Amino acid sequence: MSGRIEARLAELGLNVPTAPVPAANYIPWVRTGNLVYIAGQVPMKDGKFLWVGKVGRDYTVEEAKEAARFVGLNVLSQLKTALDGDLDRVVRAVKLNGFVNCVEGFGHQPHVINGASELMIEVFGDAGRHARSAVGVAGLPFGVAVEIDGVFEVA
Amino acid sequence: MSGRIEARLAELGLNVPTAPVPAANYIPWVRTGNLVYIAGQVPMKDGKFLWVGKVGRDYTVEEAKEAARFVGLNVLSQLKTALDGDLDRVVRAVKLNGFVNCVEGFGHQPHVINGASELMIEVFGDAGRHARSAVGVAGLPFGVAVEIDGVFEVA
Amino acid sequence: MSGRIEARLAELGLNVPTAPVPAANYIPWVRTGNLVYIAGQVPMKDGKFLWVGKVGRDYTVEEAKEAARFVGLNVLSQLKTALDGDLDRVVRAVKLNGFVNCVEGFGHQPHVINGASELMIEVFGDAGRHARSAVGVAGLPFGVAVEIDGVFEVA
Repeated sequence: MSGRIEARLAELGLNVPTAPVPAANYIPWVRTGNLVYIAGQVPMKDGKFLWVGKVGRDYTVEEAKEAARFVGLNVLSQLKTALDGDLDRVVRAVKLNGFVNCVEGFGHQPHVINGASELMIEVFGDAGRHARSAVGVAGLPFGVAVEIDGVFEVA
Repeated sequence: MSGRIEARLAELGLNVPTAPVPAANYIPWVRTGNLVYIAGQVPMKDGKFLWVGKVGRDYTVEEAKEAARFVGLNVLSQLKTALDGDLDRVVRAVKLNGFVNCVEGFGHQPHVINGASELMIEVFGDAGRHARSAVGVAGLPFGVAVEIDGVFEVA
Repeated sequence: MSGRIEARLAELGLNVPTAPVPAANYIPWVRTGNLVYIAGQVPMKDGKFLWVGKVGRDYTVEEAKEAARFVGLNVLSQLKTALDGDLDRVVRAVKLNGFVNCVEGFGHQPHVINGASELMIEVFGDAGRHARSAVGVAGLPFGVAVEIDGVFEVA
């Protein structure tokens, strides 16, 4: 708990939340070999959904970027659980997939998902740099604005 | 063919269909190391597409969940082919990605994709528990209601 | 540079472009073990976005297929960079994910993404055959018509 990454999180003033329970019949992460697959995370806190609505109508790009950063913290919370609480065992972020619940024709998915991508780099440094896809979708679970899943290499 | 998982399928009264032929210029699965990647499966049976339409307009959540379960059987059929017919070689389900062809603002993707997720758990037990993403999309191949791809760890 | 795949590209009259710089805060590829994850590529050339618009409204299926082929070349350009310029180190294409920015109800995603899939097979032969998903989305970065990411096994 008192590792390098925890110190970095404290330095950033970031609090990795308690890992949210999945909203349906799946599990939040699976490890296979040296990869951890994180299930799609949403802006859920204490069982409540935040940022419910469409980006480009209910939320600005900047607001949605905040949502993506929050979702990124939930990604980290699941990853932490997968690593028995020790984020120092993260070798690198490999891939993030970002889904933005947006109005037709919206094209600022990259700016939105940067909220999560920048978080990974702040926390892990160069090891946080990852490949990524960002797309705009017609709907997301419970109407949330952003969903992000990912793959991490771990020790 | 007479393995543990086949016995479980018989017990459940489930029939893994003959693996459908891809609808375009790709192959239905690729093995790399101990991972099998399954291409996006759709509700196709005997060359015909079932559940063609939008969830939230043409299909209820429960109907779409049935579609997802059917698509899950097609995922299993491809996996079975990848393993020379021996589903006992599945170490675990790693990740499912569920795409729901839905009306704008639809938010019940988790309930829909549970159709496939519950199937995996029924068939493989704890080894069927997987990470997952579920999103709502503007359109799917041939207008089908659900598409699901996945990654499995195999022996 | 003068390898087997480069010879094949020359034979096909294909020019793998200089790898485009990501449009946001991520990196274009990550290698983990024997897998290279390619970030979502778009039809970008010399810093400009091509094929900006909706398939089914602004572009026909055939035009969008050309866009997908172009995006496939950008996938190859990133892969080439990941392999220090030596595409002969590609063991096989594993998975492509194709996102088509389309009008509601559009169902020809498979035909569109074939543009990239056929390119992989032309270039790598049987090793280019891959698993695939193709879905239709509400919006893509900068309004482009097609985005494709992928996973490759490399030596």
